[in-house]
Amino acid sequence: MKIGILGYGNLGRGIECAIRQNEDMELAAVFTRRNPETVKILTEGVPVYPAEELERMQGKLDVLILCGGSATDLPEQTPSYAKYFNVIDSFDTHARIPEHFDNVDAVAKENGHVALISCGWDPGMFSLNRLYANAVLPEGKDYTFWGKGVSQGHSDAIRRVEGVKDGKQYTIPVERALEAVRNGDNPELTTRQKHLRECFVVAEEGADLSKIEAAIKTMPNYFADYDTTVHFISEEELKKEHSGIPHGGFVFRTGVTGWEKEHAHIIEYSLKLDSNPEFTSSVIVAYARAVYRLSLEGVSGCKTVFDIAPAYLSPKSGAELRKHLL
Amino acid sequence: MKIGILGYGNLGRGIECAIRQNEDMELAAVFTRRNPETVKILTEGVPVYPAEELERMQGKLDVLILCGGSATDLPEQTPSYAKYFNVIDSFDTHARIPEHFDNVDAVAKENGHVALISCGWDPGMFSLNRLYANAVLPEGKDYTFWGKGVSQGHSDAIRRVEGVKDGKQYTIPVERALEAVRNGDNPELTTRQKHLRECFVVAEEGADLSKIEAAIKTMPNYFADYDTTVHFISEEELKKEHSGIPHGGFVFRTGVTGWEKEHAHIIEYSLKLDSNPEFTSSVIVAYARAVYRLSLEGVSGCKTVFDIAPAYLSPKSGAELRKHLL
Repeated sequence: MKIGILGYGNLGRGIECAIRQNEDMELAAVFTRRNPETVKILTEGVPVYPAEELERMQGKLDVLILCGGSATDLPEQTPSYAKYFNVIDSFDTHARIPEHFDNVDAVAKENGHVALISCGWDPGMFSLNRLYANAVLPEGKDYTFWGKGVSQGHSDAIRRVEGVKDGKQYTIPVERALEAVRNGDNPELTTRQKHLRECFVVAEEGADLSKIEAAIKTMPNYFADYDTTVHFISEEELKKEHSGIPHGGFVFRTGVTGWEKEHAHIIEYSLKLDSNPEFTSSVIVAYARAVYRLSLEGVSGCKTVFDIAPAYLSPKSGAELRKHLL
Repeated sequence: MKIGILGYGNLGRGIECAIRQNEDMELAAVFTRRNPETVKILTEGVPVYPAEELERMQGKLDVLILCGGSATDLPEQTPSYAKYFNVIDSFDTHARIPEHFDNVDAVAKENGHVALISCGWDPGMFSLNRLYANAVLPEGKDYTFWGKGVSQGHSDAIRRVEGVKDGKQYTIPVERALEAVRNGDNPELTTRQKHLRECFVVAEEGADLSKIEAAIKTMPNYFADYDTTVHFISEEELKKEHSGIPHGGFVFRTGVTGWEKEHAHIIEYSLKLDSNPEFTSSVIVAYARAVYRLSLEGVSGCKTVFDIAPAYLSPKSGAELRKHLL
């Protein structure tokens, strides 16, 4: 299976690493909008081409993995490249998924390609768990918690505060809320009761620390609705202790069964990830296998993780899967 | 969707309750090998027929759910009834799944029906989680723990001991083992290190308790390889405190990503179930929806949970699912 990567940031590099862990896959080329000579990839002997070369690669890639951002890149790229290739993206702007799906679906169908959007862990593995659990327990309650992990958006927001040189923000689920859900208490939880926000900030020399702290804690949307902690640390400490990109979270469904709804059940799925982009990449690469197989079966159009039978993700045959994993 | 149930024990009753929680389904009839007059079901106005009537019901049931046991009932029933109906079973003898699959597949294909075998939570939801996690993290380690829950087989084994009037056995995962896996220690665990066995025993009057305890604790296969605790209690206490059928368990996969495999990840799925048969039933009923939909699409043959795209389980449309659950 020949895979192409468009965009070589954290996600693109994660895809490159994941391909190396799957023997039935091969990285064919990396495509970039930067000057290809400035992009050094890890895999020896694989070319880096300018993004403009992509159209000429038609027929030479089994799946193209789009590693751009959801804000402006993917709404443009995924429909464009679904014209030439089977594609996958990790589009994660939940509110705009229906619109993105329709755009991609039209192009993919017209050109006989399979496109899979919104792949990763949320949307992705978390969505799958919400769907399975809702189907199995139709009467119940859903809870999703994120973290402990780095939120890029909130870290960026900190860095925009006057007097801040650098910063990282961790989203942390409130332990008491997790426990209440796990106990089957079915709590109603406010935003503040679900997550904490912890910030590690490097201030500019001479900056007013209390002013920075106040600016962060009162920032609407990002921090005002949460219990937020701000730690001022040195640039060295930030680099040493907070340069990773861990993440994770929890999906619960609690529900009832029985003639009188007398029995309660709790389904819990959780992820603890050392590297958010590498885990996302690993999910995407498994789904690349599914996309390729579906295309070989003559399927076309836009799909999500909801539409893919799990067996398509594994390199093992149906008989092997039934024997060893069922 | 018209559902038939064959066999009205704990599982059959669970299916009946689950159908009531799904508005697009209707219980058409219950079939039994007992005298139908002795079988009182919960749903008003639904007939109970002798099992022999089933052949005459062809065309009147969209899916027949087989609620017999895996030892002798299902290997016989599932292939037999796949001749007349779309069928689902919860066949759980892991070692014999490949053979059962082949038997059912041949009949289902020949007669244009969809058959789904080994549905429930293990095999079932646990299998799905093993498959997804293996596909996403190809380099890693799997752990499955069961409990805390009642094991029917072990409870039966206790009741066969001389001097025992009644008894219940709980399988309990060892907390220290769970923690080691959750911490990413990737432990190698012996049978004894993974699960405890706790027995509640009602002795016959005048029986030798220490002899009973020794007989249980040294019983090969069932108890000898485990740390087993035996509590002697009264018949009243057994009835009052131990008449439920709770169960559950944990599926973990720990794995690594990155160019040098430098990042570790932990995927955990767990179930905490007040009623094992009712939860199993809820899974089966969701898959009954999928079986029916596949049959409407002209699909035939034997399937497992691995072959079913998740969207087929939900009564919601693709667009609704993408909008609300993705």
